[in-house]
Amino acid sequence: MKIGIFYRTDYINAATQVYENLKSHVEVVFFKDSSEKVFVENGIDVAISVGGDGTVLRVLKKVRCPVIGIKAGRLGFFSGYLVNEIDRLIEDLRTWNFTEDRRWTLRIESEDNHYFAINDAVLQKDVDQKIADFVVSMKDGSFYYHADGLVVSTPTGSSAYSLALGGPIMLPNVEAFEITPIAPQFLATRSLVIPSSERINVNVSDPVNLIVDGDVVEKTKSICVRKCTKNIVLLKPKGYDFSTSIKEKIGYGKMFLRNGIE
Amino acid sequence: MKIGIFYRTDYINAATQVYENLKSHVEVVFFKDSSEKVFVENGIDVAISVGGDGTVLRVLKKVRCPVIGIKAGRLGFFSGYLVNEIDRLIEDLRTWNFTEDRRWTLRIESEDNHYFAINDAVLQKDVDQKIADFVVSMKDGSFYYHADGLVVSTPTGSSAYSLALGGPIMLPNVEAFEITPIAPQFLATRSLVIPSSERINVNVSDPVNLIVDGDVVEKTKSICVRKCTKNIVLLKPKGYDFSTSIKEKIGYGKMFLRNGIE
Repeated sequence: MKIGIFYRTDYINAATQVYENLKSHVEVVFFKDSSEKVFVENGIDVAISVGGDGTVLRVLKKVRCPVIGIKAGRLGFFSGYLVNEIDRLIEDLRTWNFTEDRRWTLRIESEDNHYFAINDAVLQKDVDQKIADFVVSMKDGSFYYHADGLVVSTPTGSSAYSLALGGPIMLPNVEAFEITPIAPQFLATRSLVIPSSERINVNVSDPVNLIVDGDVVEKTKSICVRKCTKNIVLLKPKGYDFSTSIKEKIGYGKMFLRNGIE
Repeated sequence: MKIGIFYRTDYINAATQVYENLKSHVEVVFFKDSSEKVFVENGIDVAISVGGDGTVLRVLKKVRCPVIGIKAGRLGFFSGYLVNEIDRLIEDLRTWNFTEDRRWTLRIESEDNHYFAINDAVLQKDVDQKIADFVVSMKDGSFYYHADGLVVSTPTGSSAYSLALGGPIMLPNVEAFEITPIAPQFLATRSLVIPSSERINVNVSDPVNLIVDGDVVEKTKSICVRKCTKNIVLLKPKGYDFSTSIKEKIGYGKMFLRNGIE
């Protein structure tokens, strides 16, 4: 089995420790800073990300193979192993004892470019720019928002920026997009949940920033969003399911009291 | 074509007017108060509801055929015709010029009974009862809420009680349930969106009211909710789609300003 390791710069010590532990068990093909601009089409079976959920997101875009996230401190949505659980990871790799967490993704087209998003595509005005008009159109009709911006999110992204804006939590396998406006006028604060089979066009009155999975990529007045044919795969330890991660990370749905119900 | 007319008592004048206008064009088999407890298995091709969205909901549960909603004042989510649009309705019936709006529904099982819901199943404590613990379990894990109650809603119900509790708006053809807690402790105010293929169990620490589409049906400590095999069909005039109705009814996604975008 061929492994590649990507790490966030400030996680270099933990990453080196992972590398030292793994190399006697599996073939570690490379060991790279996750900020390096590379795309690894072939040559590795598994990529290991040492850092936070943001690092996993970056690694997922660099490779075609499944990704394992290792995190310091506490677990993440994408990262199922802690730095001090390397022995468990080596054993799980040996016996391939993982839960394969498969997620669907977005294809975003602007006037000139196209992108691939795991969490979300955000259209957002600059702080010194005036409030813009957004028209979201699809087969079933159109919706208008006078707002600072708009987030189109996958279920995976529903626990990211969408959640911070007041959106619902979607289980990963829901076949729907979520649209959540940023600071909307006229009380249209609610999210809109749309079948993933739809093709969504967003038109804006003025050019605004397009932010794909946290990276500002361009300014545009229109995007088209649809489900991408590409899925991504995260490998997680057995038992670390979505409901566990949402309880661990944000306390949603967690039992804080025990009043006689299990 | 055989038609049945159901009306809300205080809409008797409008309903009589509908009846008088229709009877020379189609065979009106019956003319009933919607509060009557009847179930019309066969014998009519279309049921007409004269009243509000609540009347349509009641009529949908009395018949197996498609339902047309006629409303006074302004249009509803379920009602696509106004009382003064009878001529248009007669013409649309003659040429069968409708949009068929098909919605999926819920099957709710308590310990002793089962029910069929179009909008939602609500578990809610009495006002003088203490806050209860709710455990929502499904294949992918479980979530806990310490709350006054909990709503399990279809996309159709997402614009009803769920919306009033802060939930998102779901397009009618989304294949997902929405769970929204009522007055939850510990900040777990967000809705949870779950694939409609799941089977959801809700267990409560104490018996609470079970309310199905607005009717209190029993007190229970547990329900099981899943997608029902039965769909309901609403007939609406062409052009009266969901995005139009949501703009008409609550102003969500409506253009209040025109700043150079169409």
